[in-house]
Amino acid sequence: MRIVSEQRAFGGVQSVCAHPSETCGCDMTFGLYLPPQARDGKVPVLWFLAGLTCTHENAMLKAGAQAHAAEQGFALIFPDTSPRGAGVPDDPAFDLGQGAGFYVNATEAPWDAHFAMWDYVTEELPALVFPRFPLDPDLQAISGHSMGGHGALTIAMAFPERFAAVSAFAPIANPVRSAWGQKQFRAYLGEDTTAWEPHDATLMMEDVGFPGPVLIDQGGADPYLDLLMPEALAAAMAARRQPGAFRVQAGYDHSYFFVASFIADHLDFHARAMAD
Amino acid sequence: MRIVSEQRAFGGVQSVCAHPSETCGCDMTFGLYLPPQARDGKVPVLWFLAGLTCTHENAMLKAGAQAHAAEQGFALIFPDTSPRGAGVPDDPAFDLGQGAGFYVNATEAPWDAHFAMWDYVTEELPALVFPRFPLDPDLQAISGHSMGGHGALTIAMAFPERFAAVSAFAPIANPVRSAWGQKQFRAYLGEDTTAWEPHDATLMMEDVGFPGPVLIDQGGADPYLDLLMPEALAAAMAARRQPGAFRVQAGYDHSYFFVASFIADHLDFHARAMAD
Repeated sequence: MRIVSEQRAFGGVQSVCAHPSETCGCDMTFGLYLPPQARDGKVPVLWFLAGLTCTHENAMLKAGAQAHAAEQGFALIFPDTSPRGAGVPDDPAFDLGQGAGFYVNATEAPWDAHFAMWDYVTEELPALVFPRFPLDPDLQAISGHSMGGHGALTIAMAFPERFAAVSAFAPIANPVRSAWGQKQFRAYLGEDTTAWEPHDATLMMEDVGFPGPVLIDQGGADPYLDLLMPEALAAAMAARRQPGAFRVQAGYDHSYFFVASFIADHLDFHARAMAD
Repeated sequence: MRIVSEQRAFGGVQSVCAHPSETCGCDMTFGLYLPPQARDGKVPVLWFLAGLTCTHENAMLKAGAQAHAAEQGFALIFPDTSPRGAGVPDDPAFDLGQGAGFYVNATEAPWDAHFAMWDYVTEELPALVFPRFPLDPDLQAISGHSMGGHGALTIAMAFPERFAAVSAFAPIANPVRSAWGQKQFRAYLGEDTTAWEPHDATLMMEDVGFPGPVLIDQGGADPYLDLLMPEALAAAMAARRQPGAFRVQAGYDHSYFFVASFIADHLDFHARAMAD
């Protein structure tokens, strides 16, 4: 693993790291923010998964999370959204291939050789970072935006013992019923829709839910509401009596201005969940 | 004037506006953040001038200023850093021509037909925005980063009655003695160095100072320290007994992580100055 850059931010250090990934069969890059508290010992970790077209950089530069992570004493990990590089398959569409890994392990050609973002985020990257940095594996939470909100919710419900809480900004909430989901799941996972179901936050909420609290923020003026299908997840949360909150923020769109406007709430939410 | 975009942010609205500029002889674009308080009447204004290579977007997306502007009830204006477009002269170097207006009125060809960022920021843009938006012309302050810190300081000292306070992040502090200054002043203003002097923050501090408070933050690990020459400005501030503070922030570089880490302090500083 190689440190690409280290920059002081809010008393801590924002790093960018690169490493050869066995899971993805290419070099992968991620952002890691260590708050000032990490100088004195292990700190809690918030994973933040980004959306379509994003790299490790977007949330790192535009979500404004470091200010609040420094206050709460949280580390932040910003993984990339897909494998990348000349040898990695891609598609001309922005919503398939590089930048659009959808946090699944592809089983279909040509994607299956590299696109294993589920294993990368849940296995390889944790195994890489916990031994090397002052991060407490017993205090983890996960969040994400759009496709990353989908990833955060499905991963949290698959690993309920690992995460104290999960939150999402405008998640792709019901991909098995949306053009943001069907296209990608068919390409990556094939025609058998039973393989899609563990990767649908609404179906997972109906099926198993999450033992900790769940916080969802959705912009009321989001231009992608028809693709995100937040109402399906909201209904599933209500039907299950899922602890947490589903919030519509009137007037907000799908951008990082929306994420930044509520990131402090999410950090507070995760800190309270970890303190419980 | 045309509204390019409007996005809800921290309860207010982040707009991008474009307009034909008489001063610059081209279309110009700027960012305007109106805090929630602007719905009830005129609000104070903080001008934020950006650095080399930046457009109106960089600080708008990465400085994290809106969160604190919303708390303080400040509007933010993010001008572009130069005229732009196919008909506007440019130079292959990143530090001359488009993206590098240096907040002067060029008198030398080929720059003199378009490069008038001093008049644009101090005359044309104020005349455009104050009648159209709920902005209080009697409550203005100015800040900036790097080349924009140079602009903020020189403009504030030239218009002391207009601005309650001025602050800067890693300003180009003594351009008449630096390669970030001499090259551009020679190109834009010609060989007569008396024309350069009103555009040098250190010389202006020695000559006139500023009646209100001045806040300078400089990263101690800034890779451009030799070009920025902060020690010259610090000495001039101390010699004049200029009210305010010159701060070195150990370990910080020249990036927006540095700006974002201290932007809350700057908003607080400007709010206190305006309340006086």
